Amino acid sequence: MQILHMNKGEGETSYAKNSVVQKKIISVATLMVEAAVVNILREIQPESMGFADLGCSSGPNSLTVVSQMIHAVDATCHQMGRSLPELKVLLNDLPGNDFNHVFELLPELYRKLKDDYGIHEGCYVSGVPGSFYGRLFPVRSLHFVHSSSSLHWLSQVPLSLGAGAGTHLNKEKIYISKSSSTSVIEAYQQQFHEDFSLFLRSRAKEMIIKGRMVLSFMGRMSLDPFADEACYQWELLARALMSLASHGLVEKEMIDSFNAPYYAPSPKEVESEVDKEGSFVMCDVKAFEIEWDVSDSRTLKESTGHRVAKTIRAVVEPMLESHFHLGTDMMDDLFRRYATIIDDCRSERKFKYTNLVVSFIKKG
Amino acid sequence: MQILHMNKGEGETSYAKNSVVQKKIISVATLMVEAAVVNILREIQPESMGFADLGCSSGPNSLTVVSQMIHAVDATCHQMGRSLPELKVLLNDLPGNDFNHVFELLPELYRKLKDDYGIHEGCYVSGVPGSFYGRLFPVRSLHFVHSSSSLHWLSQVPLSLGAGAGTHLNKEKIYISKSSSTSVIEAYQQQFHEDFSLFLRSRAKEMIIKGRMVLSFMGRMSLDPFADEACYQWELLARALMSLASHGLVEKEMIDSFNAPYYAPSPKEVESEVDKEGSFVMCDVKAFEIEWDVSDSRTLKESTGHRVAKTIRAVVEPMLESHFHLGTDMMDDLFRRYATIIDDCRSERKFKYTNLVVSFIKKG
Repeated sequence: MQILHMNKGEGETSYAKNSVVQKKIISVATLMVEAAVVNILREIQPESMGFADLGCSSGPNSLTVVSQMIHAVDATCHQMGRSLPELKVLLNDLPGNDFNHVFELLPELYRKLKDDYGIHEGCYVSGVPGSFYGRLFPVRSLHFVHSSSSLHWLSQVPLSLGAGAGTHLNKEKIYISKSSSTSVIEAYQQQFHEDFSLFLRSRAKEMIIKGRMVLSFMGRMSLDPFADEACYQWELLARALMSLASHGLVEKEMIDSFNAPYYAPSPKEVESEVDKEGSFVMCDVKAFEIEWDVSDSRTLKESTGHRVAKTIRAVVEPMLESHFHLGTDMMDDLFRRYATIIDDCRSERKFKYTNLVVSFIKKG
Repeated sequence: MQILHMNKGEGETSYAKNSVVQKKIISVATLMVEAAVVNILREIQPESMGFADLGCSSGPNSLTVVSQMIHAVDATCHQMGRSLPELKVLLNDLPGNDFNHVFELLPELYRKLKDDYGIHEGCYVSGVPGSFYGRLFPVRSLHFVHSSSSLHWLSQVPLSLGAGAGTHLNKEKIYISKSSSTSVIEAYQQQFHEDFSLFLRSRAKEMIIKGRMVLSFMGRMSLDPFADEACYQWELLARALMSLASHGLVEKEMIDSFNAPYYAPSPKEVESEVDKEGSFVMCDVKAFEIEWDVSDSRTLKESTGHRVAKTIRAVVEPMLESHFHLGTDMMDDLFRRYATIIDDCRSERKFKYTNLVVSFIKKG
């Protein structure tokens, strides 16, 4: 929990400068977000509306969904001929997130609310640090919950695969791989089960009846947990680490003892957890393929590999740093190797993530 | 609003390292805070309790009042034989405040709540960036409002005294001084009137009926706005700036055009604003003398002047920096001169601030 945060600041390797993939992912969920907001306003007609964004991170995307949501509220209220509800916006992330940077963007948001929607008072934004795998908000305080590019992060590395485990079950790999044993896959599935059901139980207490939730995260269409769409970015990162090890720059044992706190579930696995927990109806699921490299490559000098490596680095550097203690030069070296490996594999593979977007209604 | 924040981080000149005076001020208000909490629980018996700390800043004091409040809630509920209400804690400061640092202290607070009070769920802390001279929270969402060492800061320098004003009305001074003209005093009083009444109007909307508010800020007992107890720290800081000017290190015109966005009101002035606004009953006012230097000087090598200069620097450096653009060396020089001036005056004067603590009830 202390080490899972995006690269801070606004430098070359920061998340703020390397989050176009996550921006793209937000945009594919826009219609579901809008539909959820419209339904809340029509069905519940709230005087005051609580909206939580879980895993808001810190960068240009942090307030995107807030803006979308306010736009949808304004348009729907206009259609319905009613005044806007009071909006309580709760931005959540882990305590290590750069909330200062997010808060610096708020005066600009408030200016926009005034200029574009005539909202002078009536929108209250706060930051809520803490893990969404547990309670974050008072009972029945939320009408709408949103999370994008966050729920594929587990609360922890499965215990049997962590650095503290006696034996290394997933040698030379850092996530589920085609060569991983059943016990590795089961450990990841068990952790996903525990985390996601705790997530649902917590939100069930915090949301009002008929409240809506739209979650968007990395997943897979295939039943196989070791399908390329779910694992390939980790497979190649493991190769880059092993390349450092083969040159004596990292101990192989350090790679054997590292596994990512990540899981890319299938729609079936999500549905099964939702059914077991029992508080929500899943009303829509969509899977989208997202290119690893979403930039318009013809206009840029860098290779695809470099751009993809930068995107991944902005997200995983803090957790790699905390395990491998590489220092900046070695980290640069690692991600140069990673970029080259990606470019080398480019001809044989399509580089696409699968992103799931799921819409929920809180039962009565 | 952009420049009013304490010195960040945890370095030698940081507010986090130089806030014992403010700690002392919090401690003198403890009884009033406890009384307010007890009264809320007995009179309103809330299932859920909203608590806002306005101007929480960033340092060891940021969560002190939160801890006091939770302790009082726990003790009172125990006496009443009832379970604890759900606690919503809202930490407010301007967007430039170091909220990241405050949020890093939260896991420790949550651990304490578990260990000391058995609170596993049921206390939800969030950060709310924005000016308390305006709305910050939804209507009728607060039971208790607290603010310490913040409300003596005005929302802005009175316009007629600001850097943009054509003529300089308060030459060689940076706050109300014995030599200040009536127009200077009136400009400050008018700004205090506008700000404090806006503060009261905003809180009146946010607080529930019979809610309580405890405010603690720099003030004065004397009717004279130029009494030493209210002005003397600024008087000596102006002397230090003039000493830089006399050595050609700062332009005198820059001092003529600078005035602090600060006002130390008398209990009468506070009462008059409360009566005019009309939403609150003032149920208690106390004035305390606080030593400029609260450390046990016999155990320390530094002079009183140096310790006082460090306390003041931690608070005013960002606003001086934004006007004078001094750079670190010159800022060091300024506060060395300030320290010497304080030590030189030490025999002739007592060095005491007057701090007002005022307790309010929201009317029905």
